[in-house]
Amino acid sequence: MKDLPLSKVYQLLEPGPVVLLTTAHKGRANVMTLSWHMMMEFEPPLVACVVSNANYSFAALRATKECVIAVPALELAPKVVAVGNCSGRDVEKFQRIGLTPTPADRVAPPLVAECFANLECKVVDTRLVNRYSLFILEVLKAWTDPTRKFPKTIHHHGYGSFAVDGEMIKLKSRMP
Amino acid sequence: MKDLPLSKVYQLLEPGPVVLLTTAHKGRANVMTLSWHMMMEFEPPLVACVVSNANYSFAALRATKECVIAVPALELAPKVVAVGNCSGRDVEKFQRIGLTPTPADRVAPPLVAECFANLECKVVDTRLVNRYSLFILEVLKAWTDPTRKFPKTIHHHGYGSFAVDGEMIKLKSRMP
Repeated sequence: MKDLPLSKVYQLLEPGPVVLLTTAHKGRANVMTLSWHMMMEFEPPLVACVVSNANYSFAALRATKECVIAVPALELAPKVVAVGNCSGRDVEKFQRIGLTPTPADRVAPPLVAECFANLECKVVDTRLVNRYSLFILEVLKAWTDPTRKFPKTIHHHGYGSFAVDGEMIKLKSRMP
Repeated sequence: MKDLPLSKVYQLLEPGPVVLLTTAHKGRANVMTLSWHMMMEFEPPLVACVVSNANYSFAALRATKECVIAVPALELAPKVVAVGNCSGRDVEKFQRIGLTPTPADRVAPPLVAECFANLECKVVDTRLVNRYSLFILEVLKAWTDPTRKFPKTIHHHGYGSFAVDGEMIKLKSRMP
């Protein structure tokens, strides 16, 4: 894994891929799936996400204020769905599903070795947590796998239907 | 255009497509491009979005508390980029770019006739507008074009690079 400049983080999340979110709490790491996220600021990168209080990760995220957002490519889709189909209340997901937790640099939650990008995050605003379960994160450090140039990500349409990235098109935009 | 049950709105936005956002203020309709949006609740559907105060639409959205989110498919990509490359300060975008504003049912901002889905929204929470330009919207009414089953959407990777929806895959997920 190689450092990604923080100014480029938005290019990973803005397209709306399904991601994994890891936490670490009371000596246990856990991982969940997440599609309800968005960019809020370019640099330092701010990311909003909704982690329902029905998720086991909610308490860990609220208490520790740290997480990692890991971006899986298409070949991980079966494991991504498996992560979403069980709860850290009941199982050690990393071991059960076959994902490799790897130490992060700035936060306690682990990176996911199989993901082509990992974003180490701290919670910077909790004002909307009680009302909407909405957390605002700052990305402290970003990693990408330099051997993978254009990994295809997956986009959830509900009930296990995913659109896979297809062709890339390029138009003359003035927007970053 | 046909009514879409509000419970299905998340299936449109969760995958992260580039969308258009229309406003109406002081007798003028305007339209901007938007990728920084996410679902926050299934039903009634809540959507968060960041509309920078550098955007001409910001003042209209804050003042009128109404907008329409319209979802364009691939064939509109050149017009979507054209919308992002100019400002409502300077031009009448609908006319200049060739998009057709159509009256909405519950809000003043227009639908975009060329888009395969249109969501009529009101702003329901402005607590994070000053700090982050983050608006929370409730979708009041949703429309889809019943003749278009699986339109391909576009996902922005920065500077006019877009991933187009490719194949759909289906996995056994317990998640909605």
